[in-house]
Amino acid sequence: MEKKIIKLNSAIISAASVVGKKEHEGPLGQLFDMHDEEDRFGQKTWERAEAEMQRLSANTALSKCKMTEKDIDFMFAGDLINQCTSSAYGLLEYNVPFFGLYGACSTAVEGLILSSVMTSYSVCERCLSVTSSHNCSAERQFRTPLEYGAQRTPTAQWTVTGAGAFVTENADGKNAEGKARIVEAMPGISVEKGIKDAGNMGAAMAPAALDTLMRYLDESGKTPSDFDLIVTGDLGYEGNSILCDLMRAEGVDPCDRVNDCGMMIFSRDTQDTHSGGSGCACSAVVLASYLLPKLESGEIKDMLIMGTGALMSPDSIKQGLGIPGIAHLIRIKGA
Amino acid sequence: MEKKIIKLNSAIISAASVVGKKEHEGPLGQLFDMHDEEDRFGQKTWERAEAEMQRLSANTALSKCKMTEKDIDFMFAGDLINQCTSSAYGLLEYNVPFFGLYGACSTAVEGLILSSVMTSYSVCERCLSVTSSHNCSAERQFRTPLEYGAQRTPTAQWTVTGAGAFVTENADGKNAEGKARIVEAMPGISVEKGIKDAGNMGAAMAPAALDTLMRYLDESGKTPSDFDLIVTGDLGYEGNSILCDLMRAEGVDPCDRVNDCGMMIFSRDTQDTHSGGSGCACSAVVLASYLLPKLESGEIKDMLIMGTGALMSPDSIKQGLGIPGIAHLIRIKGA
Repeated sequence: MEKKIIKLNSAIISAASVVGKKEHEGPLGQLFDMHDEEDRFGQKTWERAEAEMQRLSANTALSKCKMTEKDIDFMFAGDLINQCTSSAYGLLEYNVPFFGLYGACSTAVEGLILSSVMTSYSVCERCLSVTSSHNCSAERQFRTPLEYGAQRTPTAQWTVTGAGAFVTENADGKNAEGKARIVEAMPGISVEKGIKDAGNMGAAMAPAALDTLMRYLDESGKTPSDFDLIVTGDLGYEGNSILCDLMRAEGVDPCDRVNDCGMMIFSRDTQDTHSGGSGCACSAVVLASYLLPKLESGEIKDMLIMGTGALMSPDSIKQGLGIPGIAHLIRIKGA
Repeated sequence: MEKKIIKLNSAIISAASVVGKKEHEGPLGQLFDMHDEEDRFGQKTWERAEAEMQRLSANTALSKCKMTEKDIDFMFAGDLINQCTSSAYGLLEYNVPFFGLYGACSTAVEGLILSSVMTSYSVCERCLSVTSSHNCSAERQFRTPLEYGAQRTPTAQWTVTGAGAFVTENADGKNAEGKARIVEAMPGISVEKGIKDAGNMGAAMAPAALDTLMRYLDESGKTPSDFDLIVTGDLGYEGNSILCDLMRAEGVDPCDRVNDCGMMIFSRDTQDTHSGGSGCACSAVVLASYLLPKLESGEIKDMLIMGTGALMSPDSIKQGLGIPGIAHLIRIKGA
């Protein structure tokens, strides 16, 4: 077996998060850079609102590190909407070479891996990676328009309305001091275990998260207790519980290290999201607003984050196919 | 202005093409590795047929260089269908880490750029990049189901049914002898000039091709006559004519070097495709079957290929937005 861990040396020198009303009302609400009380961001359509969040998050990430588009060599971006138009339109005003990605909800980490490859190996100086999701655009995309009032099952997750943007450069660079560093990556392999319920994404993605995590632990010789935190993107309560069960079945104790951004972003007591948050933005905004500051302050010294994605479409569900999951992993060290 | 040309040193050690009936009947028909007389590849749906073409092209590319999935470190793939399911399902059986891309019809070159970065900078040993399009799945995706019998405008292009796969490794590697080498890349910037007609993709993409080409020529100090061929992915007759006009307006003579894969793949005299071929597969199968052998034989010594993509969706068209174009460029040298 080939070595699959990519050695990286990239610093996240700036990050920004933009969210909607429900996310702002959640337990992390005060940490996000920007929110909109109507989830519309001044736009006429939900798709335009999502694109606008990408633009705003990119702008904010650049402002925070006192940079402009001229300082960025390449952008990586993707989202959940058909033909990734939130990214294409949201970042259209930037005069920067653009690599479009599709990794479903794993896109934030996929973008960070490719950005970090570019900066770690000095292919370029600096990258911007952006991703987004919007509850209203995603629900009509993947399930039914919200106006239909469809009842949600207990395993269903709530697509996060938000966008996250990250500026990366080589960790030996001049802006890297005091910043979190991406030191390793383990890209994900698609795994499909027969789950066909678009209302249970957690179950579809948990086996992929297990696959990536076990490959990483095997190759690195680490155990979960070597890290302060092992966090998945959006398995939610259902998927997180499945992942922990699967880990125990593999003889690995998840101890208290395993958590999920979809479980962090909404309150289970006061916000009715059933199995928790999901969407490309879920891991992006939790990382940008909540985890990165802890890494920069030294509260978190060493963590793994796995972007989890479900690679189905409405048509593949209608055509009776199972849902492939994927999980991209990066290891981030604190300042 | 930063330098944006990426220096690369990657060899395309194997390539494969799979096409449908119409492509097989075209002027390059005998060069493709595989075709299906019914465009179905034994599958029940057009979407499954497209995924199967990805699987077949990947398999064939690996067979040709006597390799298996174990020899591949990372896969890059994308397509035109919602949520890129042709790639997700087509490559699901491969136990290889997977980066999903969305670059519309520029995906073949986008995948080659990222694969080549990975191999040129020794991030890994070997990558596989795959892309596909299918006339029947793309038409019902972006325009109307074929059964409606909608009349096509003269500027409309014919989405190529096919898939192309490429295996890349470092050009100093043991399998690189006698193979074409990717030596430079200029990633594309999204450009939107107000074209709103989904039946005129060539006009939407031509300004992006001009932008990338001019940036490349400016930075490299080259002129079109320095290359044996400058080929775009799928501008078609309309877009090619616009590109040549735009080049002349910029004071650059396209001379006889500028051509387009969409103009090569179908016969204008005997196959009614109006403005020529398009789709992710267009540049992929023409490069894999027709151009690479000429590079390997030395008939072509130095060429530029630009994957051109239109980053709209059916919804963005209905919502009245213009169509952003993008063009990713690579320079390939012959053996």
